Amino acid sequence: MATALSYIRGNQQRFVAELVRFIGFPSISAQRWHAGDVGECAAWLADHLRDVGLQEVKIVPTRRYPIVYASWRRIPESPTVLIYGHYDVQPPEPLGEWLSPPFEPVVRGDHIYGRGASDDKGQMFVHVKAIESYLKTSGRLPVNLICLFEGEEEIGSPSLQSFLVTRSHILTSDCAVVSDMQIPASEHPAITYALRGALSLELEVKGPQRDLHSGVFGGAIHNPLQLLCEMIGHLHDSRGRVCIPGFYDRVRTWDAEERAYMRKMGPSDAQLLRNAGAPAWGERGYTLYERTTIRPALTVTGIGGGYQGQGAKAAIPTSAVAKFDLRLVPDQDPQEIDRLIRDHIAQLTPSSMHARVSTQMSARPALIDRSHSVLGAAARAYHRAFGAQTVFLRNGGTIPVVNLLQEILGIPVVLMGFGLPDDRIHGPNEKFHLPNFFRGIETSCLFLAELGGEARGRMRITSRENPPRMRAGVA
Amino acid sequence: MATALSYIRGNQQRFVAELVRFIGFPSISAQRWHAGDVGECAAWLADHLRDVGLQEVKIVPTRRYPIVYASWRRIPESPTVLIYGHYDVQPPEPLGEWLSPPFEPVVRGDHIYGRGASDDKGQMFVHVKAIESYLKTSGRLPVNLICLFEGEEEIGSPSLQSFLVTRSHILTSDCAVVSDMQIPASEHPAITYALRGALSLELEVKGPQRDLHSGVFGGAIHNPLQLLCEMIGHLHDSRGRVCIPGFYDRVRTWDAEERAYMRKMGPSDAQLLRNAGAPAWGERGYTLYERTTIRPALTVTGIGGGYQGQGAKAAIPTSAVAKFDLRLVPDQDPQEIDRLIRDHIAQLTPSSMHARVSTQMSARPALIDRSHSVLGAAARAYHRAFGAQTVFLRNGGTIPVVNLLQEILGIPVVLMGFGLPDDRIHGPNEKFHLPNFFRGIETSCLFLAELGGEARGRMRITSRENPPRMRAGVA
Repeated sequence: MATALSYIRGNQQRFVAELVRFIGFPSISAQRWHAGDVGECAAWLADHLRDVGLQEVKIVPTRRYPIVYASWRRIPESPTVLIYGHYDVQPPEPLGEWLSPPFEPVVRGDHIYGRGASDDKGQMFVHVKAIESYLKTSGRLPVNLICLFEGEEEIGSPSLQSFLVTRSHILTSDCAVVSDMQIPASEHPAITYALRGALSLELEVKGPQRDLHSGVFGGAIHNPLQLLCEMIGHLHDSRGRVCIPGFYDRVRTWDAEERAYMRKMGPSDAQLLRNAGAPAWGERGYTLYERTTIRPALTVTGIGGGYQGQGAKAAIPTSAVAKFDLRLVPDQDPQEIDRLIRDHIAQLTPSSMHARVSTQMSARPALIDRSHSVLGAAARAYHRAFGAQTVFLRNGGTIPVVNLLQEILGIPVVLMGFGLPDDRIHGPNEKFHLPNFFRGIETSCLFLAELGGEARGRMRITSRENPPRMRAGVA
Repeated sequence: MATALSYIRGNQQRFVAELVRFIGFPSISAQRWHAGDVGECAAWLADHLRDVGLQEVKIVPTRRYPIVYASWRRIPESPTVLIYGHYDVQPPEPLGEWLSPPFEPVVRGDHIYGRGASDDKGQMFVHVKAIESYLKTSGRLPVNLICLFEGEEEIGSPSLQSFLVTRSHILTSDCAVVSDMQIPASEHPAITYALRGALSLELEVKGPQRDLHSGVFGGAIHNPLQLLCEMIGHLHDSRGRVCIPGFYDRVRTWDAEERAYMRKMGPSDAQLLRNAGAPAWGERGYTLYERTTIRPALTVTGIGGGYQGQGAKAAIPTSAVAKFDLRLVPDQDPQEIDRLIRDHIAQLTPSSMHARVSTQMSARPALIDRSHSVLGAAARAYHRAFGAQTVFLRNGGTIPVVNLLQEILGIPVVLMGFGLPDDRIHGPNEKFHLPNFFRGIETSCLFLAELGGEARGRMRITSRENPPRMRAGVA
C-alpha cells in the first residue's frame, strides 16, 4: 500500500504523458467516419492493460465498437471489484471554439485539455494507474479485479446489455466502480447515489416537396419550421412542466426527510447557477438541484431547417428537424415515455403534415442505497486521499451502465467521480484537473485496500447488503 | 409598325444567337470573383445598345457594378418610356444539377437554357430587340425611350436608389416597364398590379456562455432553443394571424368589388395548392390568393442551434438563430414593422436572456392602379401578340425597384412579364420559352406603338392618371 502510493508520486509525469497519448485518439463513437480511430484506441488501451500487468486482456468485438476486458483473479478468498469505464468520446464540435485542438491534448496550468480528458478517459485512467501502482510494486492487488471498458457509451451503450447478459460468467463480482462523474470541488469529494435515465429522440417534420418561394407562397402554405416550433412550444406549459399527458404519472415522490437531506448536502440554487453561468428555468415548487435530479426534464438539444447561411434565402423549406434529450427519474420507464411522446406528437400533427419520431437511445434511471458498506469504504478512501469529508449526492446525468450493472449482475455500484463541475464535458475546451488525477489514483488504491480488508480489518461485502437480485455465490 | 413586326420574324435566329452571347457572361453579382465578368457583360450590353441605334449610351459606375444607361429622345411631343432590366444573375450552384453548363446556353426544343435566361437577360432583351426592330426599319421609335439596366438586382439593388435620386434629370419619363416576372402560361398573358414589400430579419437568442450538459443541467437552466421556439410560437395565434401588436394596424382592407375581381381573375385555392404541392395554412377568412397578396405574412425561413449532426449530443447550446421573411402590404411601412417586431421580441425575452434582432433587407410594397391607361395599353399589346385576353394579377413576391421607380420618379410602372412558372429562376436548368421571347418582342413593339398613339389614335398619358407624387412637366 505505502509502496504503491510512493510509486504514484514518483511516476506522475509519465502518467500524464500516457494520458496525453490516450486522449489523442479521436475515438468519437457518434461519427461513423471515426470508426478506425475508435478501434485504434481500443487496441492501444488493451496493450496498455497488458503492460500494467493485468491478465486475460481481450478486445471483445460488438456490432460497432469493441469492449476492452481484462482481469486479475489471484486471491479466491477476497472480493472481486469490477471497474467500468469508457474510452469513446463525444463529438468535439464546434471546433472553432477550442483553444487547442481537441485531440492534441495539452497541459495548461493544473489542467489537461482535450476531448475526453474528463469524460471518461482521464477518470478511467485513474484506476488503470492505481492497478499499475500495486502490480508494479508488490506484484499483487488487494482484491480480485475485472476491467470492463466500453467504446459505445456516448452513443447509448447499445451492445453493453447483451454483453453483460451473455458474458456474465466472466463478470462475476461483488461490486462495481464507475468513475464518470464530477465531485463538487477538489476539496469536496462526493459519491453519487442517484442518476437520471435518458431518452434521446429526433423529430422530423416534412413539408413541401421542394423549397417554395416565401414571397409567392408565404402566408398560405404550411411551413415545417413553423409547425416544429409550435410543437416544441406545446411540450411545456407556462409553469415549466412537461405537458405530455401521462408524463409525470410514475414519477416517484420523495418524503420530507430525503428532500431535507438533499437541501443540506446538495448545491444551493445560487451554486448551481454559478456552475452553469446561465439563468434558471423549469418546474416551479422544486429547488434547481431537485429539478435536475428527482424531477424529469425535456431539453431541445438541436434544431435545424431551412437556410442557415449568411444573408437571407426567401424559401419555405421542405423539412425541419429537432433533437430532444429527456432525463427520466424513478419509476418512469423510457419505453412508456417514448410511446407517450409519440402519441402527443401525433396529436399535434395536422393531418396534412407528416412528423416522424425516431428513438436514438434510452436508459433507465439508477438509484443506489447510500447506506451500503461499499459506499462507506469508498467514502473513507476519498476522505484519506482528498483530506475532506465525503458527501452523497444525486446527479442529473445518465450512466446507462449503472442500471445495467445493478439489474443484470445484481451488484452495488460505487459512483466515484474525479471530474470537476467546470470540466466542460461535452463542450469545447474539455479539461481534467491533474491534482484530482493524482489524488484519484490514491483514492482508487485506498478503496481497493478497504475492500480487500487491508486498511482497517477485513471488510466483507455481505450479500445482505446487496440488492435483492444479487446473484448467489459471490465471494 | 408592320415593318418592325416583319423585321422580327426575319431575324429570329440572329436574335437567339445574340441572346446566347448575352447569357454566356457569368455576370454573378453575388460572387465577388465574377466582378470582371459583370463588367464585361455591361460593356457588351452597352456596345449592343449602341449597335441597335440608341443614343447617350453610358456605363455609369456605382460602388459595385455599373448601370448601363441609354436613351432615344427625338420626339418632344411624345411620352417617354423608361425600360428597366438587370443584366446580373443569381449564382448557378448547385452546378451538378445542370444538364448543360449554366453559362454555355443551348436551345433544346422550345427553350433556351442557361443562368439568367429568364431572370432577367431574356426578358430585358425582349425590349432591346423591339427597339432594334423599329430603329433598323423606320429609323425612329413611336415614343421617347430610356433604358436603365442595372447589375446589382440579385444583391438587393444597393446603388439603385441613390442613382434614381441623383440622376433624376436624365430619367424624366411618363411610365416605366419592368419585365422580370412570370405570366401564368404562354396562352395566358398577365400584368402584375401589386407586389408585397419585404422585411428580412435574423433573431439570435443567447443562452449559457458554454454548452451545458443537458443531463446535469436539464430542467433547471434556460435553453436558447426553447426560448427561440416559444418566441416563434408567439408570433402567430392559433388562427394563423400574426400576433405582433400593431402589425395589422395599417393593413389596407379591400372592398367586396376588389375581392370579387381577385376571385375571378386569380388562382383558386386548389390551383395554388397544386402549384405549391403542399398543404394550406394561414389567416382564416381569406382565400389563399388573398393570403399571399393582400395580407401580410411572416415566414420562418431558417433555424439553427445546438447539435445538428448525426446521432445525439447531450448539451444545452449557447445560442440559437432564426431567419424571418416578412411580406408586407399597403400601407404597412417596413421600418415601422421592424420596430414593432423588435418591441415584441423584447417583450418575449426574459430579463435573464439576451435576444438580438438584425435587419437584412427591406422593401416597400407596390401597387399600381390597374385602370391606368398605360396598363390598358400594355393589356392590348399583350392581347394582340399572344392572341389571348390579358388578366391583371397581384403577386406575393417583392421587386424593390418597382416601389423605387414609383416613389422617386413618380411614374406608373407596367409589370409586363414574359417568363413562365416553370422557368426555374434561381434554380438549376433555368430556361426561357423562345415562343414567348418572340411574342414578347412583338408585345413590346405594340406597347410602344400604343403609347405613341400610333395604334388607335393618340393616347396621352395624362398627369391626372399618375400617382399624386408625379413630377410636373412630363409630356
